[in-house]
Amino acid sequence: MDIVFFGNGISEDPNPDKIRLGGKGSNLCRMAALGIPVPPGIVLPTTLCRDYMERGHLPPELMPSVHEKLKKVEEATGRHFANPHKPLLVSVRSGAPVSMPGMMDTILNLGLNADTLKGMVLETGDERFVLDSYRRFIQMFGDVVLGIPHHSFEEILNHHKKKSDAVQDTDLKPAALRDIIDDYRNLVQKGTGQPFPDDPFMQLRMAVEAVFRSWNNERAIYYRRLNHIPESYGTAVNVQSMVFGNMGNTSGTGVCFTRNPSTGERKFYGEFLINAQGEDVVAGIRTPQKIEELEREMPDVYRELLRIQALLESHYRDMQDIEFTVQQGKLYLLQTRNGKRTSAASLKIACDMVDEKLIDPRTALLRIEAEGLPALLAPIFDPTEVNAARSEKRVLAKGLNAGPGAASGYAVFQSAHAVEMAAKGKTPLLVRMETSPDDIKGMQHSSGILTARGGMTSHAAVVARGMNKPCVVGCSALIVHEEHGYADIVTEEGRHVRINEGDEVSIDGTSGEVFVGRMQTVDSDIQRAMRGEIDPASSWMARDFFQVMKWADEVRRLRVRANADTPQDANVARSFGAEGIGLCRTEHMFFGPERLPFMQQMILARTQEERELALKRLLPFQREDFERLFEAMAGYPVTIRLLDPPLHEFLPHTDEQIAELSQKIGVTEEHIRERASTLKESNPMLGHRGCRLGITYPEITRMQVRAILEAACKSRKKNIHVHPEIMVPLVGHRKELSLQKELLEVEAKRLLAEFDCHVDYKIGTMIEVPRAALTADQIAIDASFFSFGTNDLTQMTLGFSRDDSEPFLREYLRLGVYERNPFATVDESGVGEMIRIALQKGKSARHDLKTGVCGEQGGDPTSIRFFNRVGLDYVSCSPYRVPVARLAAAQAVLASE
Amino acid sequence: MDIVFFGNGISEDPNPDKIRLGGKGSNLCRMAALGIPVPPGIVLPTTLCRDYMERGHLPPELMPSVHEKLKKVEEATGRHFANPHKPLLVSVRSGAPVSMPGMMDTILNLGLNADTLKGMVLETGDERFVLDSYRRFIQMFGDVVLGIPHHSFEEILNHHKKKSDAVQDTDLKPAALRDIIDDYRNLVQKGTGQPFPDDPFMQLRMAVEAVFRSWNNERAIYYRRLNHIPESYGTAVNVQSMVFGNMGNTSGTGVCFTRNPSTGERKFYGEFLINAQGEDVVAGIRTPQKIEELEREMPDVYRELLRIQALLESHYRDMQDIEFTVQQGKLYLLQTRNGKRTSAASLKIACDMVDEKLIDPRTALLRIEAEGLPALLAPIFDPTEVNAARSEKRVLAKGLNAGPGAASGYAVFQSAHAVEMAAKGKTPLLVRMETSPDDIKGMQHSSGILTARGGMTSHAAVVARGMNKPCVVGCSALIVHEEHGYADIVTEEGRHVRINEGDEVSIDGTSGEVFVGRMQTVDSDIQRAMRGEIDPASSWMARDFFQVMKWADEVRRLRVRANADTPQDANVARSFGAEGIGLCRTEHMFFGPERLPFMQQMILARTQEERELALKRLLPFQREDFERLFEAMAGYPVTIRLLDPPLHEFLPHTDEQIAELSQKIGVTEEHIRERASTLKESNPMLGHRGCRLGITYPEITRMQVRAILEAACKSRKKNIHVHPEIMVPLVGHRKELSLQKELLEVEAKRLLAEFDCHVDYKIGTMIEVPRAALTADQIAIDASFFSFGTNDLTQMTLGFSRDDSEPFLREYLRLGVYERNPFATVDESGVGEMIRIALQKGKSARHDLKTGVCGEQGGDPTSIRFFNRVGLDYVSCSPYRVPVARLAAAQAVLASE
Repeated sequence: MDIVFFGNGISEDPNPDKIRLGGKGSNLCRMAALGIPVPPGIVLPTTLCRDYMERGHLPPELMPSVHEKLKKVEEATGRHFANPHKPLLVSVRSGAPVSMPGMMDTILNLGLNADTLKGMVLETGDERFVLDSYRRFIQMFGDVVLGIPHHSFEEILNHHKKKSDAVQDTDLKPAALRDIIDDYRNLVQKGTGQPFPDDPFMQLRMAVEAVFRSWNNERAIYYRRLNHIPESYGTAVNVQSMVFGNMGNTSGTGVCFTRNPSTGERKFYGEFLINAQGEDVVAGIRTPQKIEELEREMPDVYRELLRIQALLESHYRDMQDIEFTVQQGKLYLLQTRNGKRTSAASLKIACDMVDEKLIDPRTALLRIEAEGLPALLAPIFDPTEVNAARSEKRVLAKGLNAGPGAASGYAVFQSAHAVEMAAKGKTPLLVRMETSPDDIKGMQHSSGILTARGGMTSHAAVVARGMNKPCVVGCSALIVHEEHGYADIVTEEGRHVRINEGDEVSIDGTSGEVFVGRMQTVDSDIQRAMRGEIDPASSWMARDFFQVMKWADEVRRLRVRANADTPQDANVARSFGAEGIGLCRTEHMFFGPERLPFMQQMILARTQEERELALKRLLPFQREDFERLFEAMAGYPVTIRLLDPPLHEFLPHTDEQIAELSQKIGVTEEHIRERASTLKESNPMLGHRGCRLGITYPEITRMQVRAILEAACKSRKKNIHVHPEIMVPLVGHRKELSLQKELLEVEAKRLLAEFDCHVDYKIGTMIEVPRAALTADQIAIDASFFSFGTNDLTQMTLGFSRDDSEPFLREYLRLGVYERNPFATVDESGVGEMIRIALQKGKSARHDLKTGVCGEQGGDPTSIRFFNRVGLDYVSCSPYRVPVARLAAAQAVLASE
Repeated sequence: MDIVFFGNGISEDPNPDKIRLGGKGSNLCRMAALGIPVPPGIVLPTTLCRDYMERGHLPPELMPSVHEKLKKVEEATGRHFANPHKPLLVSVRSGAPVSMPGMMDTILNLGLNADTLKGMVLETGDERFVLDSYRRFIQMFGDVVLGIPHHSFEEILNHHKKKSDAVQDTDLKPAALRDIIDDYRNLVQKGTGQPFPDDPFMQLRMAVEAVFRSWNNERAIYYRRLNHIPESYGTAVNVQSMVFGNMGNTSGTGVCFTRNPSTGERKFYGEFLINAQGEDVVAGIRTPQKIEELEREMPDVYRELLRIQALLESHYRDMQDIEFTVQQGKLYLLQTRNGKRTSAASLKIACDMVDEKLIDPRTALLRIEAEGLPALLAPIFDPTEVNAARSEKRVLAKGLNAGPGAASGYAVFQSAHAVEMAAKGKTPLLVRMETSPDDIKGMQHSSGILTARGGMTSHAAVVARGMNKPCVVGCSALIVHEEHGYADIVTEEGRHVRINEGDEVSIDGTSGEVFVGRMQTVDSDIQRAMRGEIDPASSWMARDFFQVMKWADEVRRLRVRANADTPQDANVARSFGAEGIGLCRTEHMFFGPERLPFMQQMILARTQEERELALKRLLPFQREDFERLFEAMAGYPVTIRLLDPPLHEFLPHTDEQIAELSQKIGVTEEHIRERASTLKESNPMLGHRGCRLGITYPEITRMQVRAILEAACKSRKKNIHVHPEIMVPLVGHRKELSLQKELLEVEAKRLLAEFDCHVDYKIGTMIEVPRAALTADQIAIDASFFSFGTNDLTQMTLGFSRDDSEPFLREYLRLGVYERNPFATVDESGVGEMIRIALQKGKSARHDLKTGVCGEQGGDPTSIRFFNRVGLDYVSCSPYRVPVARLAAAQAVLASE
């Protein structure tokens, strides 16, 4: 039997391995080997668990071996298991290779029975302490080993506490504890039909078996499946001698971190309690002291602790989260593990450790969660104000934290009102049931967006993140009566609150909270440095951030572009390091107040001539936008998607708007209504949009290519390097692309000759319709690039409408049908398979095909790992996620090495 | 040079082949070889066309060879090419292996010039006739060889007709004809810069080259691509001596069929004109005589013609379409080909020819177009009434012929009104902009359905065909003002017609015509025989139909099931030979007036308990429906799809309906409105529907499986063999199916134990989400059958909403992006690829996986050929298309042999 002893400065396994000894066991062995004082114990390796599972019972030779090995613990502690004289009590814990909720956790004080109890009382002179330990042992053992419901023990305990007027457990006198112990034992007898096991060896055997058994708990199995943890791992069992921090004023216990987990500051950080057990620190009944104060209380212990924490950090080369107990003046380390930390701390610790030569930059990159960066970039509410708001019950509701950052403003329920209010110099905050492309202008003018419906990738969420606007969506407590100018919220406490237009509200897009009233926001240092407002060197956060981005750029293979529709977006994207534009949605250029009427005129045209006239008026606007985009992205590629959304989205809906438009462009209201009704679609997502527009109205495509190439020529004359990539959307059939390509090339040739100018332009397509992926070999013949539109591709491959799936998707995630929201993170076996097919077929037809992704997933770290693996050339995401993508792309390379 | 001579009872190619000599040439050779008199001529084989295309010009040795071979024609006719004495005139025609529009058609009278013209006048003594022939020759040659626009010649002709007061071409006097000829020649000189070619050899050379060139006409290329005709075929050229039917009263011309092409009757059928040319018969200027009358006019010719037509039919073993000319008492056959015929005729001819032992049953099966059967089954308007209506301008508009058959009724614009009217004993005809599942009841009560929007597979079309209701959709001249109770139509002539509620209208779902007023309809014999109302033997049509179905059943491999939701449907399906139900849409069972309120109560429930209560009330209705379905389908499988459509479809929309429901079930109107608004979706097709309902509301699935299995148990007790196949809709992920399967099995086990009954039930899924196809190996683990839902699969694979795609799909079909409507006929390279992937993956995981298709395409012959080829086990279609599917499935087998 391969059981491993540790303690007294030695570990029988000199090179402990997590797979074999589990996380906890290997760390204990490692500490022992480093000469760090740990309560001696033994580890039953995971191999024994596999053996148990195969046999269905413990191998007969196991427990004798355990008893044999336990002798080493007895030696090391000078105590004896199952012996009234200086009895050895042990804890039994599971310890899987990967931390896993759902498995058996801990049994303390194992080894107690009537005899050893007496011995303990004799030894400690503290009957109450020993009886309480025994009570706790029966309760834990009864619950986790014997399966007696936890609450049955709690009921007995509460009954006796009431009876003896005890407030805390510690108020219970020995007599009451004895009564409780009797009742506990009776409970066990009734529940199992067997007396509580008094033989410590039997207790140990049952506990070990319970740990092994718990590997196949339903919750554990579920968790493993969800996290792709091999079934074959099995769990180790740790049997460790007990130490007590509550044996008087020379005892104590504490939790500490080798650096500040909140700020990352390199300073030993933690808390302790004198005469207390570990659970007392966690329970928060007594206020712990700062770790510095231990120096005064126990100077030797403190000095030793300082030495050990430094040793552990330099050994593990990462910030450690440490638990310790002092028993009658002697320090024991109970646990060490890599500490959790905030995004800010992870940034600082990683950079500091490189400076300290503890780790290299590549390791540093893996220490920072890419998903944590947006929180560092976003403006925040003053934390003290947030706390005040919480305690004053100014938190109205909580939704999904769809766009990080904090915003306050005057509630408006219609986009037009947001524009009007902004014109008056007030800051609106747009509150809607949901948003549509109509709302883009309103969103642009608002400080933030709050919607009742929609998920993390709903229209509101995507556009808001694109604009870097704080955004909370799917706030189901909210009902917005847009036309009536108010919204109702039922708070968690059941209060009904009405928000009227013009009321001040605040939203925290990082936490998802909605507040009544206004709160101050402040910009992050990083943002200010990126905008050039402060010197990065003046702020450690900005300096470290720039450093990490530099390291990431050196490692990553994927190029990172931004989705940007305006010159402002493009400039932000460049400041964040975007290497081009991967998606410019030209339709967003049509919503300006001086443009929309022409767009509407175009849609309402009765003849091609009328339509061309309106398009001619739109052309200069588009051209100018493109010119400024090219300027912002000088030298980098700019991918421009031709008009994509259904025309219906551009027409007015309310009677008022229709009347206004009718007056403005001289078309009857009836005609507007008729056209709107003709254009109305049951499923606009699958309707007359994308290249279907360009094919049925070729004059639209012609206008757009003119605008693009005229702008390109003008830029060339200013000696700006331009690389327009014209992207045909929603192609499903090769002929769609070839028809549009022919049109584009004829127009381009004519125009470039007219301007006497050479422009290096490319024509490609989005792959977002499943048919396009399946016939990618055909489509690649006419496409010099593929850009995967993961939003639409996911919608069609899964049959999930992005705007409608929230109600069932929530349930699907709960049930584990999908592990992650497939709009946020690529669904590898479905959509991912589509992408693999398209890449394989596409490259078979054109080996130099350029490939990228421009959906929401272009900024998602998990998806980026997939995109890196399948060999895309670039990802494109909203400007504010460019840093996330740069870091995640580097991590993807490191993860695959 | 491989040029082939035919005529005078010989053919130089004894075994003429269409690929080599083209269709026309090989038929002429064949007739010559059979000893049938044809005007002698030569064929330039298709190989020469390929040679021409490779070189880019005629091979130098070609024309000398043609001249050489032409000598045989001269010999055979006793005439001389390019010689004023008895000049030989020829026709030049293209002749591709497959008949192909867009290619050069015909040049007649080639060989005429000033000299030969004189000779002809001398010979015939008819100057007018010869000059007119010359005029026609210049016009044809100028148009098709020299590219002078046809209308330019017509202008000259009309000018001279006006000038000389001529009504018909034949009224033109020689002087006028000479003027015209001069003007024609000037036109050619001006248009080409060259004089009109006078040398007959030059004329011939140019005509031959023009034929070869026309192979690569844009229209010809397009047609070949569309019809998958190999580019490499090339065309033959036929040069044939001219004969004239207009050389006096011993001459004449005619067109005839070996059997009646309209009824199929075995009787020589045709028309002729004395002293006329072929085009005179077609032009309809003179009324031709019936072919029987030729016996009186030219008894010898008639006898010879009778002999020849019989010979041709027995040679080709198919009904022939024959053209002949009599020149001065001598009969010439100009052409023979397989004759076009009506569906009724094709049925009769095929069966008769089997009786006559001309063909075997397998050949007979290939002679009947499956797509023609619905027209035989559908009731029809009395044809004389239709003609009267047309001439009285009672045809209002024409839409798509979505559901065959004829219907009259009182126009109603709301489904509720249709129900009310039907209750009063009047027959409504439902007229809508479009229909939705709300309209099902209204459609059931209407004689027919007419919609302004939608295509061949729109909701209205699919449901109407399922109900065998005549249906016209996509009638774009129509605007329906549903709430205002009227509809407006602009007729083709530009008249504005208003239809008010209650006005009588008629629709012909076979032609797509919409009439004002009522017209009588009559049932077809076949329908009456299938319903057992008449003895099939009493009607040749019914008898032949049953015969053909029997042959088809012997040949086909695919099983044919029906989509049926009601016991009535199931009975019809059985009478048409359905071998089970492939799709029972359970939601259609919830729309009855006594059921809908419970369904609505279920949807409006605030708690699971309320929902379960409402479901309990629905259960008996469903159970009873299933019991009757099982009875109708005793011994055959019945595939029942669990609830599929979004719940929103069941809720009322108008204020009136909401108020009514509120009263009926005691729920506030506000709650109904709120729930309806919550359930409203942007893209319901991709929303909360299918198994997503069953997973989020498991109690719905539980109720449905109870209803199915309780019905099955009850049927079993009546000794009826039941094979329910429970189908989980809209699965995209394996876990969706496994969750529903677990639920189904638990409930089934409980229920079967309760009823102490064994039922052979299966659980499977629809494959309609692209992700399901891609992960079919996963899904097959839990599915014992796959049923491809081609409607949804097409929608999602192509990204086409069935309800919204008409506007661009029309354009796509015009442009040839798709060759056929992908909802009607499977898109082989897209959706077909999905199906192939799903089959391959699905069978790799489960080799006995049963596979079928239950979308609209299950009844489409072209799609059935594909489904047969990829190895599906069955197709399922609407009951009235079952015969189509049976025949098409047999033809698919024969085509693949």
